[in-house]
Amino acid sequence: MVSKKDAGLAVVAAKQRLGVSWAQLAEAIGKAPAWTVAALLGQHPVPAEAAKTVAAMLDLNGETELALQAQPTRGALETAVPTDPTIYRFYEVLQVYGPAIKELIHEEFGDGIMSAINFRMDVKRVEDPAGDRVVVTLDGKFLPYQW
Amino acid sequence: MVSKKDAGLAVVAAKQRLGVSWAQLAEAIGKAPAWTVAALLGQHPVPAEAAKTVAAMLDLNGETELALQAQPTRGALETAVPTDPTIYRFYEVLQVYGPAIKELIHEEFGDGIMSAINFRMDVKRVEDPAGDRVVVTLDGKFLPYQW
Amino acid sequence: MVSKKDAGLAVVAAKQRLGVSWAQLAEAIGKAPAWTVAALLGQHPVPAEAAKTVAAMLDLNGETELALQAQPTRGALETAVPTDPTIYRFYEVLQVYGPAIKELIHEEFGDGIMSAINFRMDVKRVEDPAGDRVVVTLDGKFLPYQW
Amino acid sequence: MVSKKDAGLAVVAAKQRLGVSWAQLAEAIGKAPAWTVAALLGQHPVPAEAAKTVAAMLDLNGETELALQAQPTRGALETAVPTDPTIYRFYEVLQVYGPAIKELIHEEFGDGIMSAINFRMDVKRVEDPAGDRVVVTLDGKFLPYQW
Amino acid sequence: MVSKKDAGLAVVAAKQRLGVSWAQLAEAIGKAPAWTVAALLGQHPVPAEAAKTVAAMLDLNGETELALQAQPTRGALETAVPTDPTIYRFYEVLQVYGPAIKELIHEEFGDGIMSAINFRMDVKRVEDPAGDRVVVTLDGKFLPYQW
Amino acid sequence: MVSKKDAGLAVVAAKQRLGVSWAQLAEAIGKAPAWTVAALLGQHPVPAEAAKTVAAMLDLNGETELALQAQPTRGALETAVPTDPTIYRFYEVLQVYGPAIKELIHEEFGDGIMSAINFRMDVKRVEDPAGDRVVVTLDGKFLPYQW
Amino acid sequence: MVSKKDAGLAVVAAKQRLGVSWAQLAEAIGKAPAWTVAALLGQHPVPAEAAKTVAAMLDLNGETELALQAQPTRGALETAVPTDPTIYRFYEVLQVYGPAIKELIHEEFGDGIMSAINFRMDVKRVEDPAGDRVVVTLDGKFLPYQW
Amino acid sequence: MVSKKDAGLAVVAAKQRLGVSWAQLAEAIGKAPAWTVAALLGQHPVPAEAAKTVAAMLDLNGETELALQAQPTRGALETAVPTDPTIYRFYEVLQVYGPAIKELIHEEFGDGIMSAINFRMDVKRVEDPAGDRVVVTLDGKFLPYQW
Amino acid sequence: MVSKKDAGLAVVAAKQRLGVSWAQLAEAIGKAPAWTVAALLGQHPVPAEAAKTVAAMLDLNGETELALQAQPTRGALETAVPTDPTIYRFYEVLQVYGPAIKELIHEEFGDGIMSAINFRMDVKRVEDPAGDRVVVTLDGKFLPYQW
Amino acid sequence: MVSKKDAGLAVVAAKQRLGVSWAQLAEAIGKAPAWTVAALLGQHPVPAEAAKTVAAMLDLNGETELALQAQPTRGALETAVPTDPTIYRFYEVLQVYGPAIKELIHEEFGDGIMSAINFRMDVKRVEDPAGDRVVVTLDGKFLPYQW
Repeated sequence: MVSKKDAGLAVVAAKQRLGVSWAQLAEAIGKAPAWTVAALLGQHPVPAEAAKTVAAMLDLNGETELALQAQPTRGALETAVPTDPTIYRFYEVLQVYGPAIKELIHEEFGDGIMSAINFRMDVKRVEDPAGDRVVVTLDGKFLPYQW
Repeated sequence: MVSKKDAGLAVVAAKQRLGVSWAQLAEAIGKAPAWTVAALLGQHPVPAEAAKTVAAMLDLNGETELALQAQPTRGALETAVPTDPTIYRFYEVLQVYGPAIKELIHEEFGDGIMSAINFRMDVKRVEDPAGDRVVVTLDGKFLPYQW
Repeated sequence: MVSKKDAGLAVVAAKQRLGVSWAQLAEAIGKAPAWTVAALLGQHPVPAEAAKTVAAMLDLNGETELALQAQPTRGALETAVPTDPTIYRFYEVLQVYGPAIKELIHEEFGDGIMSAINFRMDVKRVEDPAGDRVVVTLDGKFLPYQW
Repeated sequence: MVSKKDAGLAVVAAKQRLGVSWAQLAEAIGKAPAWTVAALLGQHPVPAEAAKTVAAMLDLNGETELALQAQPTRGALETAVPTDPTIYRFYEVLQVYGPAIKELIHEEFGDGIMSAINFRMDVKRVEDPAGDRVVVTLDGKFLPYQW
Repeated sequence: MVSKKDAGLAVVAAKQRLGVSWAQLAEAIGKAPAWTVAALLGQHPVPAEAAKTVAAMLDLNGETELALQAQPTRGALETAVPTDPTIYRFYEVLQVYGPAIKELIHEEFGDGIMSAINFRMDVKRVEDPAGDRVVVTLDGKFLPYQW
Repeated sequence: MVSKKDAGLAVVAAKQRLGVSWAQLAEAIGKAPAWTVAALLGQHPVPAEAAKTVAAMLDLNGETELALQAQPTRGALETAVPTDPTIYRFYEVLQVYGPAIKELIHEEFGDGIMSAINFRMDVKRVEDPAGDRVVVTLDGKFLPYQW
Repeated sequence: MVSKKDAGLAVVAAKQRLGVSWAQLAEAIGKAPAWTVAALLGQHPVPAEAAKTVAAMLDLNGETELALQAQPTRGALETAVPTDPTIYRFYEVLQVYGPAIKELIHEEFGDGIMSAINFRMDVKRVEDPAGDRVVVTLDGKFLPYQW
Repeated sequence: MVSKKDAGLAVVAAKQRLGVSWAQLAEAIGKAPAWTVAALLGQHPVPAEAAKTVAAMLDLNGETELALQAQPTRGALETAVPTDPTIYRFYEVLQVYGPAIKELIHEEFGDGIMSAINFRMDVKRVEDPAGDRVVVTLDGKFLPYQW
Repeated sequence: MVSKKDAGLAVVAAKQRLGVSWAQLAEAIGKAPAWTVAALLGQHPVPAEAAKTVAAMLDLNGETELALQAQPTRGALETAVPTDPTIYRFYEVLQVYGPAIKELIHEEFGDGIMSAINFRMDVKRVEDPAGDRVVVTLDGKFLPYQW
Repeated sequence: MVSKKDAGLAVVAAKQRLGVSWAQLAEAIGKAPAWTVAALLGQHPVPAEAAKTVAAMLDLNGETELALQAQPTRGALETAVPTDPTIYRFYEVLQVYGPAIKELIHEEFGDGIMSAINFRMDVKRVEDPAGDRVVVTLDGKFLPYQW
């Protein structure tokens, strides 16, 4: 059996070998890039049609294609505190700004949360003479505490 | 001695008692709301002038005003994995999308990180007929791995 | 300053001293019992009117009444794995049935979650000749993964 | 040797490949759905007859059939705090409502616990115009502390 | 407010100061020694009458007497793995014999557990020419897994 | 090479396949049941003669027979806090009664411990009209702190 | 109440203030230095006579003298892995030589342990032209695994 | 590739199969027993000549011989707190006597540590009518804190 | 697929087998030694040309060469607190001097950090009659907190 | 009693209040800045004369002056993985470059470590047109593994 993790590793290896980009994969399946990457790394079930397209582009075998479609048990970090610097910076943002984000959500919306389920996000480059910037937008439906 | 944590608790208690909002505090000191809240909760040193303004608005004593200005040892979460649902959802985003964000940064910019130091962020409400949305924008300078 | 945790301890101590039940408190503020207890233990902000009622019934001082109204940073367990047997059994249910619940939600609803925000629950006694039963009903809105 | 975990993975993979549902498996072996899924994922020993039925429906080999019958060492979560959002929400319920559930059990029954051994549960969909709901019922015998 | 932990410390300090033994306390309240010690250390609610007796014998104040009667949130170890050698040896027994105990319970009784709720235990000295022995008897009702 | 853990798994699998009980194995090698199970699960070195007997009864190969005889690095639990309910209840006993056991040992014997090395234990069924009981007797030599 | 930890801190502070050495304290109470230090830091109960002598030499109050005599719950390290370099080196010895010590004990004595209860130790300086050496001798009774 | 851990397991298995002792191995390579065992278990690089001798005595293959010579990443314990009782007792010694050892080193030598690098140790049997004793001598150069 | 970790192990094994030094590898690819070692151990992507050179020098296969080029998920330590003494000493430096480094950076530069991305380092030997010294220079761009 | 931690907090608070710099304190006591800061934050014992000087400059009371002189139990980080970004970057350097530093030390010096005891360090600013740099030099005696 091919696990979703194995399938994700196969995707990454094939991308490198074949020179296919995430952008190309996302466009080919008609999904947002962030969704596409997360899904192909094993964090979302990939619809059958999309899995087929990806398998063709990346020359993946049938078991891997099936694994991409399977329902994941989500959770991509190998340790509770991520060690990779590119990922860690987002954890650091939580350590420094987490309670501030919470306060601002409560002040604007009242008691509740930003959904991470009814949610979309993107990562984009914004040019800046002082050095281009990574702008990550997290966009989730507000869910009020509601009994 | 008043610690920065004590000072943060004093700020929150005074806000509740006096009915002052984060938005009013941010405006009064001329800083972005997310910066203001993080700083008053103890995650940034507050400039002397701003600390004075805040102390006046919230009726804080001199030691607390001094504590607001002190250099913090940053880190606002009490546990490595936050338990509060409003904050946890952002940790969950990292668990589900962390490696995807990393891949997209590398594809767009090459090897490197989004700075969490040369960084700004905001939290805003976007109206939506299907339910208003919390949109959090993380905006940091790209820093390439550079020897 | 009185923290929400202090306020919760004060509530519990006053209940014992005065012989007031959770059911009486819930009825007095017109809320469901499970919500009432969680809120008075510091996991929900208590509306001003209800806090006033509770403070009167339990002879709490003004700072405690204010603390009950404050926005909580949620998370009631002192350790990630609870040690108290009455609470632990629910953690054990998660260890034994967690993935099964997940499978059943996905089979019935597709990919998504039971909301813990748009959520209500109750605890009731069901008589049974072989020994009465504790029946806990968790009732949350289904939220589909939705980009 | 096939471990119970391997057997569980084989069941899930075969279900996906053959399009068999948990409901069909539960009905075929005459057990409640939640019990069936937990058992086939390795958390309960499956009676020989039922294991045979499942093996036939899912085209599992003899070693896997044997593994399904073996006595488990229970515990299905890979980390003490689950990372999968669908499972996490139940952990969050414990963080927010755990002590409240404890208080209500003690108020209604006295000192004791809800058994997680003499226990049954189910997961069902309740239609609701504001969005259908996941209703999970946990139903365990009350066990008083008894020396 | 006096917590149950404070009350336990007060009991231990008073015992030392006044030279009262656990055996005397157990006899005075008519309970088994192991129950008595656990309860006075804060792991069981002490009935009002017994708390009164103990408070009189140990010269405890009224708040402490009340704390002894309160419902505990159980869990007496300060770390998941106990550091005190006298307690650690029992953890070591679990590390060495835990799975063996499990196998023997299952072989004799089938799938199920020894209850730690419907449970009694004692600690006694058994004389032995090769050195007296500590004999701890754990005696709990068998609870079969029962849906 | 066959590890002691592998050997233990092989023993359990063979027992199930061949319908041999722990009691039969213990009797065949003339050892107490609890010792026998612990040893065959890899927590004690099995004497050569006994390993030979067990290998013959369970049709184990020579490498497994050798592994049974090897000196173990003891420690059978996969996590510091066990997740299996049958084992967990003994950890729970430690959480609730650990300090009480300690107090009773000190009161009866003075400062010291129950040895877990010069130690024997058994698990037996005691019939009881209110439900049969699991009685676990831990019996270790008292070792006084002695400089 | 004065805890044993408080008493230990009081001893260390008084030693510094009054210029009394551990050697003087050990000699005064007629105990080995390592035992004396461990006991005064709270890891052994100090006999009444010795506690009185120490209290007199260090000008400790009566509650502290009583605390020194109390039975400790042992365990002196604040974290599982010690951070202080002087203590850490002994943990490092365990990381590098732990399994080697185990093998040598088993080769020389058979299956068993060095007792840490029937145990004495000392720390001494051995002069060496290449730099004096710290020689720590751990001396415990061998305890064979014995059923 | 054969890792140093694999090589250590091969050494232990070959010793058991061929009946070679650590003492014989140490003598054959002319090193102290404790060094020899630690090195062959993978905690020191074994000089080429010694590795050759050991490989010949234990019938190890060339890759294993090479692995014995490789520079280790040290650290032999599988968990921060060791579970094996023979090793645990040394951890317990640290929990009970760690700070006492530290105090005695500082009193005798001033601020500094016992080196675990310029270090030798041995394990020996000392006969004693009350039961033979394990005497472990740790002997490291004193290193003063020196800027 | 060959992971970056596998590739690192292959590099180390080949170096030992073929007697190639890190210095030779660094010179051959024209990079600083510290960068070269970190990269070949899997912590940086190796440019295609350099990977080819290394593969030729160390006789690595094509998959390994490809793995060297892949983008790493960084983080080389197997445990949060490193166990290897050579690495641990740097962690110890952080435990002892971490806050001091922080204070000195803030005093000299104001609020901000030393970048670990725009960063270079080296390790060199400095001769010293009292014993040669390891001098490690960490050299990163100062990044001020900048909104 | 004033702990070394309290003393460190008092130093930092007094510095802020009185506008005294670390550089001034270091110069006044004639020690290197990094040593001075670490020592005043509680990680080294401060010589009596220096403590007196510091106490005078910062208007500290006698107990604080005494605490500065006391022998520390070292370890300045509140969590194993530091959360403060300025300190974290050095932990990140360990995660990325730790094994590389180890390899380079072994290649240059053979098996051994950089001492963190016979050790000095400094933090300096190096001007750079592309942004000034923080240069931290760690300088410790090489200690070969030596039996």
